[in-house]
Formats: sequence, C-alpha cells, structure tokens
Amino acid sequence: MKKTVYLDNNATTKIDEKVFEKMLPYLKENYANPSSMYDSAHVCANAIEEARKQVADFLGVENEKSVIFTSCGTESANTAIKGVVFQYGDKENKNHIITTQVEHPCVLSVYENLEKKGYKSTYVSVDENGEINIDNLLSKITPNTILLSVMHANNETGAVYPVYEIAKRAKEINKNIKVFVDGVQAAGKIPIELENSEIDFYSISGHKFHAPKGVGALYVKKGVLFEPFMLGGHQEYSLRAGTQNTPYIVGMGKAAQLAKESLEYELKEVKRLRDKLEKGILSQLRNAKLNSKSSNRVPNTTNIGFEYIEGELILLYLNDLGICASSGSACTSGSLDPSHVLRAQKVPFTSLHGAIRFSLSRFTTEEEIDYAIEKVPEVIKKLAKISPFQSELNALGL
Amino acid sequence: MKKTVYLDNNATTKIDEKVFEKMLPYLKENYANPSSMYDSAHVCANAIEEARKQVADFLGVENEKSVIFTSCGTESANTAIKGVVFQYGDKENKNHIITTQVEHPCVLSVYENLEKKGYKSTYVSVDENGEINIDNLLSKITPNTILLSVMHANNETGAVYPVYEIAKRAKEINKNIKVFVDGVQAAGKIPIELENSEIDFYSISGHKFHAPKGVGALYVKKGVLFEPFMLGGHQEYSLRAGTQNTPYIVGMGKAAQLAKESLEYELKEVKRLRDKLEKGILSQLRNAKLNSKSSNRVPNTTNIGFEYIEGELILLYLNDLGICASSGSACTSGSLDPSHVLRAQKVPFTSLHGAIRFSLSRFTTEEEIDYAIEKVPEVIKKLAKISPFQSELNALGL
Repeated sequence: MKKTVYLDNNATTKIDEKVFEKMLPYLKENYANPSSMYDSAHVCANAIEEARKQVADFLGVENEKSVIFTSCGTESANTAIKGVVFQYGDKENKNHIITTQVEHPCVLSVYENLEKKGYKSTYVSVDENGEINIDNLLSKITPNTILLSVMHANNETGAVYPVYEIAKRAKEINKNIKVFVDGVQAAGKIPIELENSEIDFYSISGHKFHAPKGVGALYVKKGVLFEPFMLGGHQEYSLRAGTQNTPYIVGMGKAAQLAKESLEYELKEVKRLRDKLEKGILSQLRNAKLNSKSSNRVPNTTNIGFEYIEGELILLYLNDLGICASSGSACTSGSLDPSHVLRAQKVPFTSLHGAIRFSLSRFTTEEEIDYAIEKVPEVIKKLAKISPFQSELNALGL
Repeated sequence: MKKTVYLDNNATTKIDEKVFEKMLPYLKENYANPSSMYDSAHVCANAIEEARKQVADFLGVENEKSVIFTSCGTESANTAIKGVVFQYGDKENKNHIITTQVEHPCVLSVYENLEKKGYKSTYVSVDENGEINIDNLLSKITPNTILLSVMHANNETGAVYPVYEIAKRAKEINKNIKVFVDGVQAAGKIPIELENSEIDFYSISGHKFHAPKGVGALYVKKGVLFEPFMLGGHQEYSLRAGTQNTPYIVGMGKAAQLAKESLEYELKEVKRLRDKLEKGILSQLRNAKLNSKSSNRVPNTTNIGFEYIEGELILLYLNDLGICASSGSACTSGSLDPSHVLRAQKVPFTSLHGAIRFSLSRFTTEEEIDYAIEKVPEVIKKLAKISPFQSELNALGL
C-alpha cells in the first residue's frame, strides 16, 4: 500500500475513532426518527440534545438552544446570510451588506446571488500580510447596512481576523447591524468564546474537526430572528426542517468535546510541527515565499508560494509521493483561476500560481513532517528543471 | 431488553446491513474530500459517481447526471420549488403554483413562505378515498402557472397519485409549467420510471429506503434550469454546493440498488403482511375504520381510525408493548392538530383523533405482524373502558 502523508486538513479531516465509536449505535440499532413518540425515538432525541450541549460548550455558549444543527458549513452560511437579509432587508433601504474579498466561496456565492436580486455588497480587501484594516471596514457602514460578515480564520492562509472587536465596534456605529462570522476554519484550531460577544451568527462544519462530512451547526444569538432557510417540519426549534441526522449530530458533539480538549495540543504541538515544516521547506528553497504572513494565524496552516513553478504540477508530483496538499480551497478546485485570497493579498503572479497549502491536524506525526521536509524540496527542484523560467530560477540557485 | 416491533417505516427505516458495509470504508480510511486532487480523493469521487448511477437506475433515468445529491428530502423539495419559482417566476405574472392539500409539510411550508413573498398558490383537495380529481386539478392551470407539485405517494395513507398522467396532461394545457413530484414515500415501495415522463423534478430521501438519515437526491430533467438553493462551491455540477457526504451518498446508492431488487418482494410479501395486519385489526374491532381507502396504495402502509379513542394515548400504550407506530407525520408530531391529510379526506372527527399509521418494511416479520394483531385490539379495548364516549363504544360492542 502506498504511503500517505495527509497534509490537507483544511479540506477535510478523518473521523476520530472515538467519534466513530460514539456514532456507531445510531448507525445501527438506534435508528428511530428522533421526532417520533416512542422510547427508541427518545433515545435519539436525547442523544441530539447531549450533542447540542457539547457543541455549545465548544463555542463558549451557555444556552445550548442557541445552537441548531445543519447539513454542513455551507448550509449554515446560507442560513445565516439569507436568513438576515430576508428577515431585516428590503431592496430599497435596508439593502447593504459588508464582507471581505477573502471569504469562502460558500459565503461569496450567496452575496453574488443577492446582488442579482437587488441587494448591494461592499467587499473590503486585506493588506499584503492578509490582514484586515478594521477602521477601513467600519468606515463602510451606512444606515442601510443590515449585515456584516467576516470569517474567523481564512481557509487558505490561516489568517485569524479580529471578529470580536469588529462585531463590537460595528454595533457601536449601527446597533441594528447583524454580524455573521464563518468560523468553519477556526473551530478546533483556536478558542471560540461567543457568549459575551456581539456576534449574532457563527457557523461551523463538523468535518473540519474530525466529525463526518455532512453535518454543521449554526450559533444564533438569543433573541435574534431570521427567516429559516430549510423549510418544512418543526425540527431544531422550527429553525431548520428535515429529519435530524442523529449519527452525525452525535458524532459532531463528541468531536466538539474532543476538539476542545485537544486545543492546547493544537496550539502547541501542531503549531510546532507546522513551524518545523515551514522552516524546513523555506530554508532549502530560495524560490519559496511564505504567503501566510498574518501576525495571527491558526496553528495548523501554512501557505507557501513556489516562484516560477506551477501549483497543479507540484500537487501531481506530491501525490506520486503520497503527500496530500492543495493549491487552494477544495471547493474551487477544478478551476484554473489563481486563488482569490492570494490575489486580494497582492501576491505577485510569479508565485501566485505555485501556491501550496499544507494543513496539519492533531493526528499529523513528526515522521510525516520529516518526510514532507525531505520530499517537497526534491519535487520543486525537479520541476525547476522543466520550468520555462530557467534564468529566473538559476538566479535563485535552482 | 424490551421487545420492539417497528411499524413506523414511513417515519424512517433502519440502515440495511449491506448498506452499512458499503459505507464503512468511507467513514474510516477513505475520508478525503472528493473535490481534492490526489488519489485518495479520486477514490471518493468515483464512489459518488457509482452511487449516482445506482440512484439513476433506481429512478428509471438513463443519464446519471440528472441526479444531484442533497442532505435530505426536505432539501430536495426546497431546491426544486424555490429553484423553479426564482428561475421562472415573478410576482406580477408568472406567479402561480398548483399543489394539493395533502402534501408533506416540507412542501406546504415552502408554499406558505412563497405566498408571504407575493406568489399565489392553489391547493386542490382529495375525495373521501384520498384520491385526486385530475380534471379539477388541471382546471386550475392558468397562463400564469409556473409550477405544479403533486406527491407520488402520501406519507400518511399511502395513497398513490397518478403523477405521470398529471404531468403529461398539464403540459398539454400549458407547456411552460414545470412539474415537481415529491417521491419520498414512493421510493422503494413502487416502481419509478422518470425517463420518458413529463416530470421535471423528483425528490427522494435515503432514510425512507434503508439508507441513513441525512442524504437525499433530486432528479432534474435534462435541459431544465433552476436557481440553485445551496450556494457555494462547484460540487454536484454547481447545482448543490457543500462538501459531499461520501459515506451517506455511497450508502444511498447501495440502498437504491437493493430497493430496486426488493421491489417484487415489497409488492407481494410486504403487501401480504400489511393486508394481514389490516384485516386482523379491522375484523376484531367494530370502531376501527380504514382511512387508507385509495384504490392505488403503496404496499407497506395502512392508516386506521379508532373511533372515540385518542391517538396519542394509543401510541403511548403501544409503546409500552414495544410497538412503534405513529399518528401522522413525524415532522408534525408534537402538534396536537389532527392530520391535515385526513381532514382533507373529510374523515369524521370521531375517528380523526384516533388515526394510527402502521408502515412496514422488507424487514418486518410475520411474527411481528401476529404480535401487533394480538396487541392492538387489546389496547383499544382497554382504552375504550376509559373513553368519555361509553355509550357510543358500547353500541359498537366495546
């Protein structure tokens, strides 16, 4: 069997064995519809409520009723954004949304759609370190602004944005604004404390922290109304219809508990391994430039641009060596456009096409990192030989 | 351990062991994001395409690209309905929808929402047998009608509606109408043949035919456009965003294959057991009336009204004996309103509150049916003694 070194944990993670064990009875004998009226259904309904408490605890939320379960991070984002716009907005006055150029496609696509329907969006950019200028962002607020939406951590570079401060200051300017934070890439990597924040909506996705793909959650601040997205039955306090996916919800609860317990390890050990990988690669290659330059970063992510080398080709060669990495979001793969996140950061075109993201997890081993530190430079040196930019690469000693 | 006789398969079904076995590797080692670029991701992407072929085959569809995977039947219905209305509709002219009073809440809730947004709906009723008068339904079509939506089989009574004929005749009257069929309760119970039909959208839910809860599919006729519901990444031909839930999709594919293979058993053996249960109960109780009176019914469902007895109480007593059944849709449980389906059928109030649905599956055994035939009448006789309608029940020999 081929060796696999999985360094693409921002795309998805493997299910923790302890999560799987917790899910298993709900994939087998405990199959009742949690909305039904008999004992076996109550077992499932109770398990969902336990998971809700675990997720609330993970998000730093006191009342678990502020958490609703969804089918994924994308659904959570669609729910929050459309929910606010259709609850509070109109196309004449209350029609303005502020967000950033570096949001995930699941957020940006919703804004594009709303613009077609007559709403207006302002996209603020980031500086060359990937950081947001808060004063600039807040200066865009008008009396017509209904929603402000900033991700907590960027999926491509790992940059962490000051969402608590942004939310607080935004409401000081216009108290009617609702604040949505896409927390999908923060969950499991940095602490989350929503209880005393001014954040109204916060989305997470189970499969980014060792729960399965196909379950997400949305935090909604107490008292904040929104038009439900998934319409139908009365599940999830009538805020999200559809038969509840008991096994995955239970799994996400367990994964949230484990992620909270592992946070210290993540911030220390995973960071140490990420830093080792980063330094190990950068020190061997003069054409390697760090794209993850924010002063505040999640501990597991690095994004490195290899000048004059084509990213897709790097991934192909790494794949042959069993190393899994990515050139951007899995949700935009297949597209040949360079990353919208790195373009916003004004990464020069010479390294834009050769940007590779490595993302670790608590299951990443020292041996795997050592293997990557050995193999990645070998691949880059090999590809440098067939690059059309020979003189530029020679000047960099390649 | 308490004996359990599960007769609520229209609420949900247990995962077939063969489905679970097929899913297992994708819950374990094959965890890559199917949109990623490396070998382990391609394994997942290929498994999804195999499942898509299995589901297409199950639906009688030649080109599997007509099938998109969703998170549930509710999402499939929301996608089809809102997708048509936002693609083809406007609030002035193309604003009219025709549906039935007996649709599932996940369909009716969407129409209620659209009415608030300015669209107009016409709800046709059913007769006392639960059957639709097609001429009456078609007479509601106007030049403004954009969508016609009729379920294939009713979840509460099992009545099968002539959706192929309705779709064909509707398009003869107004060729621009799109037809959506909620097939959630038909899938696995009766044959489905969409290829040469005039149906544009057909929704199914995995957990109604022994796949897990949290996966659905939507058939979209080739060339028919709709505004996507879940916005974000490019997954599912850019028609449904969100990281694909590989294990459940693979499971749904296998479940579709097994359901197709089991259809003959369903139509013969499951029907025989259902009929035995029905006759067994009706023959022992003079206050028991059949609510499932349609001449065309799915083979697994019966709905019986027990006059002068309270349904919730019946369920409570059946639960003590390990018998799982329901008084309506699990999606409306918790509500004390009597079934909207049975009201549309003009079931008299004396038996409306005592309506119980029993729904079987291919895993239901003869022994379980014999147990139910013995126990259900015992429960009804016991409850008759504490009913406030003593003289009426005495007149019926109870």
